[in-house]
Amino acid sequence: MSTAVPMRDEDIAGFDASDPLASFRARFTLPHGVVYLDGNSLGALPVATAVRLQRAVAEEWGQGLIRSWNSADWIGLPSRVGDKIGRLIGAAPGETVVADSTSVNLFKVLAAALGLKPGRHRIVSQRDNFPTDVYMAQGLAAFLGQGHELVLLPDDPDAATVEAALDSDTAVLMLTHVNYRTGRIHDMTHLTGAAHRAGAFALWDLAHSAGALPVELNRAGADFAVGCGYKYLNGGPGAPAFLWVAERHQASFAQPLSGWMGHAAPFAFDATYRPAEGIARYLCGTPPVLGATALECGVDLMLETDMEALREKSIALTSLFIERVESRCPGLELVSPRNAAERGSQVSFRHCHGYALMQALISRGVIGDFRAPDIVRFGFAPLYVSFRDVADAVDVMTDLIATGGWDCPEFHARAAVT
Amino acid sequence: MSTAVPMRDEDIAGFDASDPLASFRARFTLPHGVVYLDGNSLGALPVATAVRLQRAVAEEWGQGLIRSWNSADWIGLPSRVGDKIGRLIGAAPGETVVADSTSVNLFKVLAAALGLKPGRHRIVSQRDNFPTDVYMAQGLAAFLGQGHELVLLPDDPDAATVEAALDSDTAVLMLTHVNYRTGRIHDMTHLTGAAHRAGAFALWDLAHSAGALPVELNRAGADFAVGCGYKYLNGGPGAPAFLWVAERHQASFAQPLSGWMGHAAPFAFDATYRPAEGIARYLCGTPPVLGATALECGVDLMLETDMEALREKSIALTSLFIERVESRCPGLELVSPRNAAERGSQVSFRHCHGYALMQALISRGVIGDFRAPDIVRFGFAPLYVSFRDVADAVDVMTDLIATGGWDCPEFHARAAVT
Repeated sequence: MSTAVPMRDEDIAGFDASDPLASFRARFTLPHGVVYLDGNSLGALPVATAVRLQRAVAEEWGQGLIRSWNSADWIGLPSRVGDKIGRLIGAAPGETVVADSTSVNLFKVLAAALGLKPGRHRIVSQRDNFPTDVYMAQGLAAFLGQGHELVLLPDDPDAATVEAALDSDTAVLMLTHVNYRTGRIHDMTHLTGAAHRAGAFALWDLAHSAGALPVELNRAGADFAVGCGYKYLNGGPGAPAFLWVAERHQASFAQPLSGWMGHAAPFAFDATYRPAEGIARYLCGTPPVLGATALECGVDLMLETDMEALREKSIALTSLFIERVESRCPGLELVSPRNAAERGSQVSFRHCHGYALMQALISRGVIGDFRAPDIVRFGFAPLYVSFRDVADAVDVMTDLIATGGWDCPEFHARAAVT
Repeated sequence: MSTAVPMRDEDIAGFDASDPLASFRARFTLPHGVVYLDGNSLGALPVATAVRLQRAVAEEWGQGLIRSWNSADWIGLPSRVGDKIGRLIGAAPGETVVADSTSVNLFKVLAAALGLKPGRHRIVSQRDNFPTDVYMAQGLAAFLGQGHELVLLPDDPDAATVEAALDSDTAVLMLTHVNYRTGRIHDMTHLTGAAHRAGAFALWDLAHSAGALPVELNRAGADFAVGCGYKYLNGGPGAPAFLWVAERHQASFAQPLSGWMGHAAPFAFDATYRPAEGIARYLCGTPPVLGATALECGVDLMLETDMEALREKSIALTSLFIERVESRCPGLELVSPRNAAERGSQVSFRHCHGYALMQALISRGVIGDFRAPDIVRFGFAPLYVSFRDVADAVDVMTDLIATGGWDCPEFHARAAVT
């Protein structure tokens, strides 16, 4: 689909009619009167999830009680759902588990990575990595002391800047594949190679990638990855996160959150920790059954699609949105890459009254996100966002801005200078 | 209630009829044909929880979507549910949060405690503390290195043994209040005092206490505590856990799992971690909304009761069970304290064929637990276990053993010698 020529309103219906993913929209429970462009913050509710959770609660918990750890295979949830997610991110079976939060998982893989690089003290990342990634690395470096540190590159660094920062003291390059603020995609293969050439590991946060675009961790040669269950995977609010470790590291790594579920024999009740073989040693406490069950529903739905088709629609949606906003809504400055190949499934604009603008949009049923200080961010989950949604959202924003009061004198002055 | 004279079957109905907590049983969904004596492993399903979760899923997630972080106060769940649990464990408001798993929370408080005791390297615990407590402390000590170590006292140590182990290198005494294996209660006030006299902190795991018997953390002068949501609090399988820190430590402590939810301003997206004031700095990643919502239902139900009445019934149930098993079921040796004041809400017996015995009981609808190598364990959740349940469970066990094949020649020989 070309986006060179502005698309006419009558094209919109055609796009939806020929969208091979259109039928997925009915698989989600979406509120009436809302255009939901925040699936990159909290994914929508799959219809199947409500039914499945009710069964998990009433039957597995209520009737099965403790027996369901085996009879309903609750104990298998972390690796079963992990492997399903693995199919979306280019992982081999046995490389992915569902556990804890993205933050806690970052601590585990960072600690494991540092343990495998004795004598190296630096974690390299970027200032506008997602805050919790930065905070967890800061917490770990401070806790370890002895010269460990987090080095933050400036916002939105290009590949050359990242590459130049990797030195002989770098243990880990920690990046989020798709930036939460700008939607810019890092070249995973290239930067993983750069990390390896510097003797460091590459750790990827897939929070805005998994379920949003094709990811090939093994093909890229990556070492570690973490990711989020409640965004594009539609796992529900605060869903458990996932964690991936390349098979080649699984005999050697250790991580300090050595809880009983990561023990080689959790139910032997030994008095000494002995790590499980493979990825299971990244488990810690008792698995969050309800959350992991809901997540499995979201992942199962995602597995019915083809990631290439998903990506194609994602690019078409974001391209249409950019074209329409830029041609109809003055005062908005594109923050996301214009080149679709460098852009995830979201579009961010800067607006001097960004907070007020997003509040006004939300009150009119167009739900996106605000990111301080001045970014309005719109996520396009291709499974349930339609081309009609995009056109409607821009229409609402166009009408809103036309009511006046949205001028940005300083903003425009600054924009003219830079 | 006296347990000196064996109780007759006709007394059982009378006990249930005069049980002030009897009406709570109807507030749970329990399977027919089952006597559930494993609520100390996984609590039963409150009727209200299924309804509440359905609403959380369909309305809050499905319709409210991202807006529910504010409109349904998802963001308030960790402290709101934490404070409710606080009322059950003798905490002041603002001292308790719901977060992560018990294992992860142990890591946070142990790390924080060690940070407040520079120059001290030892964590003192007991060999038969719950395995994950032991493993987490081992993982932390190994990760910190520099002489940090976990010192394990023998199984089932008395107060004098514990006290004697606390030396000038001890940073933390880490004990589970009610032992998972034997049900023995440690004297929290006495041992906390002993830890303080040695210049150490007292950290209590309340997994088998919260919701099972009265706990008074502040009255005992305790420093840190963690606990489990899915046992006596009936929060559901893998429910999030809780964490308590005495108010006097809240200005000074730090913990290394410094995720964004523990930041002073999580949504300012600063590039530097700055801990929240107070207990919130113990939060890490995004709260598990579904799990915490289910947990809140269980806790709300518990708050309708009186912990003293609960304890009274608990003692009556466990006393009745011990008396009947000992008088009717040969081959079972009491492991739990005979003195009710030293016993939690569970009873454990040793049997040479313990595993097979528990499997046979479960197949006949009496659900307890087996703990290697030879312990059969029965939990008595006073909110939903009746005196009839106790009598029925013993009747089933009596009939089972009467079928023969349960003799333990070696076991009896050993018992005769000791």
